Amino acid sequence: MSQLAALDAADPLAPARARFALPPGVVYLDGNSLGPLPAALPERLAHTLAHEWGKGLIRSWNDAGWIDLPVTLGAAIAPIVGAEPDSVVACDSVSLNLFKLASAALAMRAGRTTVLMEASDFPTDAYVMQGLAGLAGVTLKRVPRAELVAALDDDVALMLLTHAHYVSAQLHDMAAMSEAAHQAGALTLWDLSHSAGALVVNLDADGADFAVGCGYKFLNGGPGAPAFAYLARRHWEAAQPALTGWMGHARPFDFAADYAPAAGARRLLTGTPPILAMRALEAGVATFDGIDLAQAEAKSRQLVQLFAAGAATLPGVRVDASPQGRHGAHVIIRHAAARRVMTALIARGVIGDMRPPDAMRFGFPALTTRFADVGLALTAIEQVLASGEWQDERFAPKGVVS
Amino acid sequence: MSQLAALDAADPLAPARARFALPPGVVYLDGNSLGPLPAALPERLAHTLAHEWGKGLIRSWNDAGWIDLPVTLGAAIAPIVGAEPDSVVACDSVSLNLFKLASAALAMRAGRTTVLMEASDFPTDAYVMQGLAGLAGVTLKRVPRAELVAALDDDVALMLLTHAHYVSAQLHDMAAMSEAAHQAGALTLWDLSHSAGALVVNLDADGADFAVGCGYKFLNGGPGAPAFAYLARRHWEAAQPALTGWMGHARPFDFAADYAPAAGARRLLTGTPPILAMRALEAGVATFDGIDLAQAEAKSRQLVQLFAAGAATLPGVRVDASPQGRHGAHVIIRHAAARRVMTALIARGVIGDMRPPDAMRFGFPALTTRFADVGLALTAIEQVLASGEWQDERFAPKGVVS
Repeated sequence: MSQLAALDAADPLAPARARFALPPGVVYLDGNSLGPLPAALPERLAHTLAHEWGKGLIRSWNDAGWIDLPVTLGAAIAPIVGAEPDSVVACDSVSLNLFKLASAALAMRAGRTTVLMEASDFPTDAYVMQGLAGLAGVTLKRVPRAELVAALDDDVALMLLTHAHYVSAQLHDMAAMSEAAHQAGALTLWDLSHSAGALVVNLDADGADFAVGCGYKFLNGGPGAPAFAYLARRHWEAAQPALTGWMGHARPFDFAADYAPAAGARRLLTGTPPILAMRALEAGVATFDGIDLAQAEAKSRQLVQLFAAGAATLPGVRVDASPQGRHGAHVIIRHAAARRVMTALIARGVIGDMRPPDAMRFGFPALTTRFADVGLALTAIEQVLASGEWQDERFAPKGVVS
Repeated sequence: MSQLAALDAADPLAPARARFALPPGVVYLDGNSLGPLPAALPERLAHTLAHEWGKGLIRSWNDAGWIDLPVTLGAAIAPIVGAEPDSVVACDSVSLNLFKLASAALAMRAGRTTVLMEASDFPTDAYVMQGLAGLAGVTLKRVPRAELVAALDDDVALMLLTHAHYVSAQLHDMAAMSEAAHQAGALTLWDLSHSAGALVVNLDADGADFAVGCGYKFLNGGPGAPAFAYLARRHWEAAQPALTGWMGHARPFDFAADYAPAAGARRLLTGTPPILAMRALEAGVATFDGIDLAQAEAKSRQLVQLFAAGAATLPGVRVDASPQGRHGAHVIIRHAAARRVMTALIARGVIGDMRPPDAMRFGFPALTTRFADVGLALTAIEQVLASGEWQDERFAPKGVVS
């Protein structure tokens, strides 16, 4: 038995793969961008369509629990990110939840006019903050990772950080950075897009103030799944987002003239919850039932390290220096013709994604990735490079999503 | 043949009802709150799950057209609201789209500090404006319908109006009100929640600047379906919403550091589009294929008037004065014990909804409502009132959604 086969045979998480409907012949290393289909979902969603919507119609807002799905689903996500159940709601997108929580932070630190973030973080986080900054009359300050703590002066209202970086997979020390922000009088907003469901996350214990996370990556909630938002208990009363819709109202069905926030994280809701998408996310979150996230994190780390070590030996391939200690569940390898190489790999059924110009990103979610996949992926990359097939016209760049 | 049966037999829209999976034995008069299940959707969504997500995985963002769904679906909605295809996108919720467009309007009318709206409009519209007003330092002014035009002074940046009122079903004259706003130098934002799909709407021809509409009412997109947003062509360059996410970026997959708006209405997008919900909305919108909206509006008006005339003869029931001329596709009837009466009606399979304290609302979408339903509903109301069964303990108020 090869080393990889032995690791699979000994893997306590191996049975979790059966919770998904993965296509045969595919080595899927992009669960960090879109988690695969939970096997239980088609039947569940067919029931939602036929019985809850089709037969129940409007009655299902009460009878099928639709109206409470943002909070019941939030409570199901909460243990995955180390939060108490009532501090998390599922709703809207990462972008919109960032706006909500950042606007609340600005109001709680009136007089301070800076939002601090890391310069290289995922673009939508910066775009959202640019939009908010323009409206609220504050300034967005972006600095390299190493300068974040020094930039925490007494004008910083909020520090927005991505827990696991979308390219480097580097982790911030949530407890230490939260403490540094608090000592400067600032609040912290954590983007968990690349850590929720991949790593141990302890929002409550690590002193996070606010957080958002993605439903369609490691949580397996489906393409464009609703996101989630976290509001620490100590801010339940004080936090008031500027996106104030009826579902965040204390008594939405009183149809009162003026806004009054609901208790706790429920005030983060805005419009009517998208039930079909919520049911899909519910099935995705259920794939974590009984999963030990420390075990999942350790497995993903081992997968990343085995893959990175193998890729580093391939011609023309450069592997970014592996972060020391804990890191996210994906890794970047670089090649001058990365886009063509990735296209050729996908044609062979080995699926990762691209971050231009030269980065190929591969993700190793613990629930769906086998150790054998590392070997299959490395062999495919080796063959694509050795054969020169990536130079073929059919692998020229096309399509919008890279 | 009774009068109602004759009307059904002569109704050119009668065949459209077969486009829906309506439960037997139910008289569904709440399509104005949640449209029924399109019959084609379960198979369509099963395909999206199994093939697009399950097998296609991340590749479906290109191969299945996911990435463009907000604009292709927007283009499909556009003719229903009298807009050119590229002026409409499907995304987020009504609440969030109101925020986006109102924030754009404020920036386009810098120096003006008033948002004007009708005092009795649907609460979420006011809540959203209250949140925006607090952040942007402007004032929300709410006046009765008759005072709107007089309130259009030179401090008004934006007038937000609901086209068909959610209670009274009264219509604003879109062309006249837009003209009045423009003469005062203000912009107009139309909430089409209770008109899109029910009535003839002519956004382009009537001079609307911005509009939002609901996907889950008359458009039959499913519970909490994505909403839509309209941006008139003459504002494509100038309008810049403050909710700026990566999907509204000119080149989202360049991962550029700074936000740059996409061309046209695409800049109204924010986060990653919810594909499962979009597919459902697509099926809902497709139920309008080949439908003449003038015919649909006329049929709904006839249904409303027949129902209102019958209800007015029932003991203890008061029918709000029917608006003259054109009006929305629903009607309110009032009874002192409205909530209990409605609960008893629902138990009999006649489904409307409640607007507290004393209003029962019944909707008559042309695609799904038969003239016979008017008779069945009136008979049921008469029986509930005559029997006194609404006083039974089992019809006492419960549940969150009324």
